[in-house]
This record gives sequence, structure tokens and C-alpha cells, in this order.
Amino acid sequence: MAQKTPMLLIPGPITLPERVLKAMAKPIINHRGEEFHSLYDKVEEGLKHVFQTENNVYIISGSGTSGVDMVFQNFVYEGEKVLIPDFGDFTERAVENALKIGAEPVTVKAEWGSLPSLREITSVVEEEDVKSVFILHNETSTGVTFRMMEELRNAVRGKDILVFADTVSSLGVEPFYTDKWGVDVCVTCSQKGLGGPPGLSFTSVSERALEKGLNNPRRRSFYLDIEKIHRFHLKKETPFTPAIPLIYGIAEALEILREEGYDERMRRHRENAEMIYGFLESEGVEIFPREKEHRSISIIVFKNKGFDAPKTIKKLYDEYGILIARGMGRLRDETTRIGNVGYEGKKEIEYFLKSFKTVLNSTR
Amino acid sequence: MAQKTPMLLIPGPITLPERVLKAMAKPIINHRGEEFHSLYDKVEEGLKHVFQTENNVYIISGSGTSGVDMVFQNFVYEGEKVLIPDFGDFTERAVENALKIGAEPVTVKAEWGSLPSLREITSVVEEEDVKSVFILHNETSTGVTFRMMEELRNAVRGKDILVFADTVSSLGVEPFYTDKWGVDVCVTCSQKGLGGPPGLSFTSVSERALEKGLNNPRRRSFYLDIEKIHRFHLKKETPFTPAIPLIYGIAEALEILREEGYDERMRRHRENAEMIYGFLESEGVEIFPREKEHRSISIIVFKNKGFDAPKTIKKLYDEYGILIARGMGRLRDETTRIGNVGYEGKKEIEYFLKSFKTVLNSTR
Repeated sequence: MAQKTPMLLIPGPITLPERVLKAMAKPIINHRGEEFHSLYDKVEEGLKHVFQTENNVYIISGSGTSGVDMVFQNFVYEGEKVLIPDFGDFTERAVENALKIGAEPVTVKAEWGSLPSLREITSVVEEEDVKSVFILHNETSTGVTFRMMEELRNAVRGKDILVFADTVSSLGVEPFYTDKWGVDVCVTCSQKGLGGPPGLSFTSVSERALEKGLNNPRRRSFYLDIEKIHRFHLKKETPFTPAIPLIYGIAEALEILREEGYDERMRRHRENAEMIYGFLESEGVEIFPREKEHRSISIIVFKNKGFDAPKTIKKLYDEYGILIARGMGRLRDETTRIGNVGYEGKKEIEYFLKSFKTVLNSTR
Repeated sequence: MAQKTPMLLIPGPITLPERVLKAMAKPIINHRGEEFHSLYDKVEEGLKHVFQTENNVYIISGSGTSGVDMVFQNFVYEGEKVLIPDFGDFTERAVENALKIGAEPVTVKAEWGSLPSLREITSVVEEEDVKSVFILHNETSTGVTFRMMEELRNAVRGKDILVFADTVSSLGVEPFYTDKWGVDVCVTCSQKGLGGPPGLSFTSVSERALEKGLNNPRRRSFYLDIEKIHRFHLKKETPFTPAIPLIYGIAEALEILREEGYDERMRRHRENAEMIYGFLESEGVEIFPREKEHRSISIIVFKNKGFDAPKTIKKLYDEYGILIARGMGRLRDETTRIGNVGYEGKKEIEYFLKSFKTVLNSTR
């Protein structure tokens, strides 16, 4: 039953449908012409829908990390305090990014697999002179989702504090309301929940964040300079030559999302996750996140207890063509991860779980 | 005679052959697996050949500008002097990039359309405490190529000065000898002379440049951090999710280059350029670069004198499907540009020149 095209159940990139693959093979067009402008327009329209925002959404040719770097390079000033709830590998990257640009990260740490409490976060907001808060919406390394965006909005309301959200591994998988939740800057990527090819990053920026970025006394990156990005955005262009094939790809992926329907997509991912968590529990496999309400829909992380993880991953791929992922960072040997960010429906997840069960039984 | 797929004779991106387009539609693979490692290996091998280098060549998902930004973010220290011969729009960008990272650019300026003299450049090398020299090998805005790399190597020999070269619009079009010319860091992109899709940047880095980069007391970009890029390169990976479809595309383009042969490709581009320059001269059109020996092979720039440039460009595209480019930066209204960086051979250039002659006659 091995499939020719592997079924990628890793935290992205995902297995792409023929439609998206074929879209990338379209002839190259001039990136300063009308045809490109209308492509750009179409993509931005689709992105605004998934972001649930009226803000500008910028397209960067680069991975999700380039989008996060862009946030720090522009919207955090040197010497400023930025609050970063710290609970995994990607939040630690954000702390490093803040340090690199000369900002002062104020962290609220939680053990990996859990989240800092809202009380801890709000007390920093009240007591320290933070100018922004960086929220990792979904932590890919631990499989924990931060679902306190509304409470955070209330805590910072009326204060001169920007809210940044990294939805790299969650946008398009579970509902995220950029405008309703008062998120000033939201970053995501092309190759996970949005259903596109890897290589693009998308960032929505509110008016007040844009103003702060444009007034930044020292934006250090030439490539990720918001002044240039915004100026060309107004012409429906990017300042530097964009990855046209990938933009064709994401345009098609956003069209598929529109056809599937936003609510239907959210439902599909939620039901997939429920099936997977249910299976793991029925098999007695220990889920990594401590609290049920923190469990990620997009990245399912469980402990390597009672079975040989590397052998399981290899066998699942070799015999069934399904790829799941090892743990990440310091959880590399301790956990295994299942990405639930692609196009798989009930049938594919059933096939995966059936195969997984067979493999698991042979490696226990 | 309008063609369905436009013939892009702009300074990139180029019209891609079916083979390269189709390669991008291959199934997505895991970027941390063996299949990706061998793809990465193959691409680096092909790149080393075109770069004429034994140094590591890093792959960045981003435009050529991201590669140039990477050079400044890592290999130029804050407060340091960097010499930048300044003769066009892209050299001015380099000056801005140097300022952004807090370095002190020392410029030797020449009027656009010409080059600073070697004497001016060497006197700065002798008199000022510069730690690096940034050479723009081919200036896309003016159509001028810097062909004094060997002389520059002699001028900096034995000194603690790194040589950077931006070959974004020339590598794969005219010979460039990274190692022979003592170039420590050479940057290029995927969508021009290398014959690939837009969206990737490639940078070769010498041992001593790498060491300087790793010892940089403050690398500010997280995305373009040489420490991470190098560490993952050793595993044949990129630190962040790479643009896999584009890497498939450049692998195919490099294979085509290998089949065509390096010398044959250089000959083709040189002969194309000779045909185009010959035609312009026979038509009495004024070439922009002042000296014949500075004329670019990849980007042919001429003055908008005696004909209506916007009308000519539009007509050539509407009636013949051939796109040439307007001038760039402050030369926008004064010049027109022909990109000679793609797959066109003698036949296509003849077709272009015949069409161009007809259009030109009607707009004079």
C-alpha cells in the first residue's frame, strides 16, 4: 500500500494537490506588470479572508521565519522591552530575535508542554514598561496552542502596547481573528494551514504598527524593510523580485480554501485532530501537552514511551509512505509529532491511523 | 506573431523552458530527509561550477537582495569601513545597506554610465582603513560591468580586506572566477544567468570570510544568520523551511547549463549582446555606457532619444509578445533596457531585432 507521493504528516511542508503543483508550472510573468498586479491583488484578498483582517497583508519571499524576523526588524525598537511568553523552541527563537535587534525581551516562562498563566502575563503588562507582546499562537515544538488572545486583548486595551502573533503553524487550521482580537501584526507562512508551497511568508500590519515601523529610528534589514515593503505594496508589487511560481501556487491554494469554505476547513482539521488524539489515548500513548485545552489542532505531540520512535517513523514511511516527524529541539528524542495542517480528510486519517496502529504494535 | 508565452527580455526574471517549469510541479518532499539532502548536494555541485569556486555555496530562500543583505548582516562589522565603488542604483542600495547595519561606507563615485578608475579605488584601499570592498560586478540600472576584478585582487593582496562581489545580474552570462579573482563572498540569484525561477539567492563564502562572520559580535538578522546557515549547510539543509519547488527548478536549470556547456553558454550570451549592440548602433540609437569596454553583456541600456520609449515597449509587447524594460531609478525616463540573461539563442534575438526595428520605425 506504499504511495508514490508520500503523505506528509509533518508540521509542514504538506503534500500538495495536483492543482497547486501545476499552478507553479505556469509561464513566468513580469513582476512589474498588470498581470502580476492582479495576481497580487487576488492573493491579498484571499489572505485577508483567512487572517480575518482589514489590514494590509504583505507578501515576503522567504520562510515563515523571515516574516518573524521582519516583525522584530521593524516594529520593535532598539532598547525597548518586549514581552514574550516563553514555552517552547519557537518562543526561544523569538527571544533570540529580540536580542539580536537590541531589544530587551521580558519573558514569562512555562515548562514545555504547558503555558504561562494569564495572571503572570498581565502582571508583566501592568508592572513593566513593555511596548509590545509577542504571542506564539501555536508552538510547533510542544504542540501547545495559546488560546487566550481575547483575554490578552483586554489586558492591553488602551495601553501603548502592540500585539504580535505568530500563527505560522496554526492559521488556516483553527479560527484566528486578527482584527477582533486586536492583533497588530500577524505572521504566517505558505506551506502549512494555508495549503500552499513552502517559501512565502505573509504579515498583516495594523495602521498603528505601520506608523511605528515607519518611524523606527533604525531599521537594520534592507531585505525586510517595512518602508520598502509598504511602498511597493501600494502598487501591488514587492520591492524585490518575488518568487512568482510560489505566488501562483498560493493563489491556487487560497482558491481551494475558498471552495472548501473557511468553516468547513476548520471543522475538518478539528475532527482530524480529535480522531488522532482519540486514537493515541485508546492506545495508551501519552500526549505531551499537560492540559487538554492547550492541545494543538495542527501539531499533535506525544511522548516516546513504550515504543521505539525512530523505528516507528521509519517503518511507517517505508511501508506505508506516510511521514510523521521526530521531536524538535530538546524534545527531539523524547517526543514524536504528527502534522495535521494539510489536505487530509477523514479517509486519509483513517488510513494513517490503521497503518500507524500496525506499525506501533510491531515496535512496542 | 504574438506569442502565448511572452518572451521576457527584461533584466530577469526570464522565460523558463518547459523542463524547468515542470520540475517545479514535482511532489513536495520533507526538507529534513535524505531525498532533500541529495537534491541540495546536486544544486551545490552545479553552483560551484558556475561560481568557479571550491568555497561553500549557501542557498537562501529569498531574492538576490536577501543575499546581499546577508553579506552586510554577517561579514561587515558595525563601525567598520567598507569601500563601495558607487556607479548606479544597485551600488547606492549597497551603500544604504551598509549604513543600515551601522557600518561606514567609503564611496568612490562615478557618473552613471561609467566606472570609478582603478587608481581612485586603490588609493582608498591604501589610505583608508577599509576592512572590505563591495564590488557590483554588473550594474543593472546603467548596463555597466566592472571588469577590473584581477586588478582589484592585486590591490588588496596581503591586506586584511575581504572582497565581496554582487554578480546578481551577470553570473552565468559572462565568465566570473570567484576563487581565481580572490573573491571572498560572491552573491547571485536564481532567475537570471543561472536560468532558474525567481526566489532564491546563492552566496559563496571563503574560509576567512566565514570565520569573520562567525566572530561578528552582533549579527542582527535571525533569518540571514550565517552561523545558522552554515551549521545546517553541513547537514545539506537550510535552517528554515526552504522553497522546495524553486530548488527543484534551479536543479533542472543547472542541469541544462551543464548540458549546454559553460563555454558555449558564455559564447551565446556574448554573441547575443554583439548582435543587439550592433543593431542599436546601426539604427543610430545611443548606448548608455560611455566606454565600449564597460558595456554589459547581460543588460543592454540605451538612451530614449529620437523615439517614444513607453510606446515602443508597449507595442513590442502587444504586437510581438516581447517584453523589454524601462529604465531604472533616476534613469527611468531617460533609458530603456534589454535583458540578455535568458535562454534566447541567435534565432530568438533575430526575431526580436526584426520586430524591434519595425516598432522603432513606427515610433520615431
